Amino acid sequence: MRDFSKRLAYLRESPTRKIDALRERLKREGKDVIILSAGQPSIPPPLEVRQKMAELLQEESMELYGYTPSQGIYELREAISEDLRRLGGLDVSPDHIVVTAGGQAAMFSTLASILEPGDEVILFDPTYFGYKPLLEYFGARVVRLRTSLEEGYQPSVERLKELVSPKTKAVIIVSPDNPTGRLISPDSAKAIADLAIDNDIWLITDEAYKTMIYEGEHVYLYKLAPENVISINTFSKDPAIPGWRLGYVYGPKEAVSRIKLVNEEMVYCPPSFAQKMVAIYLRSDIRMKYVKDFIAAYRARRDAAVDALKRYVPEGKFKVPQGSMFIFVDLSSYIDDGEAFAQKLLQEYSVALVPGNYFSEVYKAAVRISFVAEKTERLIEGIRRIGEALVAYR
Amino acid sequence: MRDFSKRLAYLRESPTRKIDALRERLKREGKDVIILSAGQPSIPPPLEVRQKMAELLQEESMELYGYTPSQGIYELREAISEDLRRLGGLDVSPDHIVVTAGGQAAMFSTLASILEPGDEVILFDPTYFGYKPLLEYFGARVVRLRTSLEEGYQPSVERLKELVSPKTKAVIIVSPDNPTGRLISPDSAKAIADLAIDNDIWLITDEAYKTMIYEGEHVYLYKLAPENVISINTFSKDPAIPGWRLGYVYGPKEAVSRIKLVNEEMVYCPPSFAQKMVAIYLRSDIRMKYVKDFIAAYRARRDAAVDALKRYVPEGKFKVPQGSMFIFVDLSSYIDDGEAFAQKLLQEYSVALVPGNYFSEVYKAAVRISFVAEKTERLIEGIRRIGEALVAYR
Repeated sequence: MRDFSKRLAYLRESPTRKIDALRERLKREGKDVIILSAGQPSIPPPLEVRQKMAELLQEESMELYGYTPSQGIYELREAISEDLRRLGGLDVSPDHIVVTAGGQAAMFSTLASILEPGDEVILFDPTYFGYKPLLEYFGARVVRLRTSLEEGYQPSVERLKELVSPKTKAVIIVSPDNPTGRLISPDSAKAIADLAIDNDIWLITDEAYKTMIYEGEHVYLYKLAPENVISINTFSKDPAIPGWRLGYVYGPKEAVSRIKLVNEEMVYCPPSFAQKMVAIYLRSDIRMKYVKDFIAAYRARRDAAVDALKRYVPEGKFKVPQGSMFIFVDLSSYIDDGEAFAQKLLQEYSVALVPGNYFSEVYKAAVRISFVAEKTERLIEGIRRIGEALVAYR
Repeated sequence: MRDFSKRLAYLRESPTRKIDALRERLKREGKDVIILSAGQPSIPPPLEVRQKMAELLQEESMELYGYTPSQGIYELREAISEDLRRLGGLDVSPDHIVVTAGGQAAMFSTLASILEPGDEVILFDPTYFGYKPLLEYFGARVVRLRTSLEEGYQPSVERLKELVSPKTKAVIIVSPDNPTGRLISPDSAKAIADLAIDNDIWLITDEAYKTMIYEGEHVYLYKLAPENVISINTFSKDPAIPGWRLGYVYGPKEAVSRIKLVNEEMVYCPPSFAQKMVAIYLRSDIRMKYVKDFIAAYRARRDAAVDALKRYVPEGKFKVPQGSMFIFVDLSSYIDDGEAFAQKLLQEYSVALVPGNYFSEVYKAAVRISFVAEKTERLIEGIRRIGEALVAYR
């Protein structure tokens, strides 16, 4: 019978992809849409590094085109090891790192490696929408740990303890968080690490935005529980190559070797051109200057967005993000249904954003605003239109 | 419990990756190894196309770096559609094409999309070793259809009929074949297509080597059974970017939409840089000239390898490959165990090849020789050493 796998029912088209499709249709119709939906930087990778890659493209050899080891080229894993030491004082050897075809492949292969049907996995609410469909696809049960704006989206460790059961396989912690921009506090981190060690559960830490921090400091949970932490990372945000698909996982060797095996079966090896470029970038003199520059640029946009929200959406409630690319705004004083509002906003006001129900079962009247995809003027205009639409919609 | 998925037991490190690791160790020890193991071209992509990409790298925009649609950029899917028309007179619209992060991702996502535990899938013997672990990982039972050197590795349609059961989900056909270089004959193709239609089963056609043909013509099974065929393709061989990870699947729309969904969850989108390059390549004036040139170069090497085999390995039995990169040589007149021989050959004679038991449960005394990875002189020297080792080993 030419039928299909039933498990596919758990996979859904990514909500941001749906918005992208609608956005592109509007663009074809000649509409100029202000993009506050995309989690994609607008500052390209450093020119020096791109020029070096351009030179390599002229060479008459297969060096740049051939397969690489499935775990990633050693030069890049070494550069990542050095980078983790520089950024957080971490001691992670290249053997404990597997390079992947992006953060999504890091997530997919990590979950494929650890999950058995029936496992429970604790996921914060709100948090990144990418985990739930994968968890369900691999047969795990999603257990939600509610966090709230009032508590600055910090997890309550008491509530977390209550949710842990003998079936708990892992807790997933996105920090800096998408969509709230919250950093896990050092106290929360310590308590969660202790709980993971005591209960022998995995901590999956999603560190996609670890160099995109405006105030405060990133806590590396790996330092607190090196045997329990599997860390998901991406080069999509820093150095801004989302389309090139490169990320990595670090963690205990027995986990990394299995994740490597799954990646080998999924994609054979990570893209070689991107690997070479990132190896050059991480070891270049400008690596930390590039970070400093994009942080300054995105912080200025964040501040402009915060000011615009106070002015145009005065009853919107949000926590000023300490990191990431997003402001998560609770619009429950204006509306009930963020998804219906987002659709109306896109169609009638040509502003794209992502509704809160993609991240939360609670904050359904919220929206996620990206402040990195558009330049300041258009960002402010987008928020002005949100205010206008809210008044009209109320 | 910090344990791992039991299904991982079905995944094994790719045998060629194991050989790569050993090879690299020998290289570090200063040994110059002749590589007859790698299924990797030695002629890089056209310089004109690489130069165009080098120019694009200088542009100060996110165009080249951003996410693409999960299905692949439209420009590339259109170029693939045109290419399929040019190559085989196929009528495949861009909607029926999904671009993937390489042939491996095409295989993984296709099998993830169609398989249920308990399904039976018919796999030729010998054939490419990449399918069996994936089939078992997804819970399918592998049913082997034996083919033989005496019959030119053409499948017997009578035997195939006997293997089809109500549980048969798919037949996998690699043509040009890896490792035998056999092309499916038009008669076999027609009979298999009819059988698939009559029994309502999927035909997975692996067309990785479809432009790498020295004699004869590639049969597109899609033309014979468009509702049954899901075709796996790669740009690793043509235009020689194995490390860049780009491939595609074409087939019925309801299959392609599901395969797209799985790829979105696996890797979000295929690598954008590679997509752009291949779109330019496929639409360039030199596309067919590049194919003509590499075929001429690789045909000359194939012929040199055939001559060398006749001279140095006179009792080796093989079919001269009509396509692909490989000669599959039955060494049963000399040895019993191709794997032990391959190990000895690598360690004592510094020649790497792949033993037959990776492809076959029958041809265990065979070896696969790649004739594209090394230039002619070293290729001949490698085969001379094989002959020398066989005499010593016998």
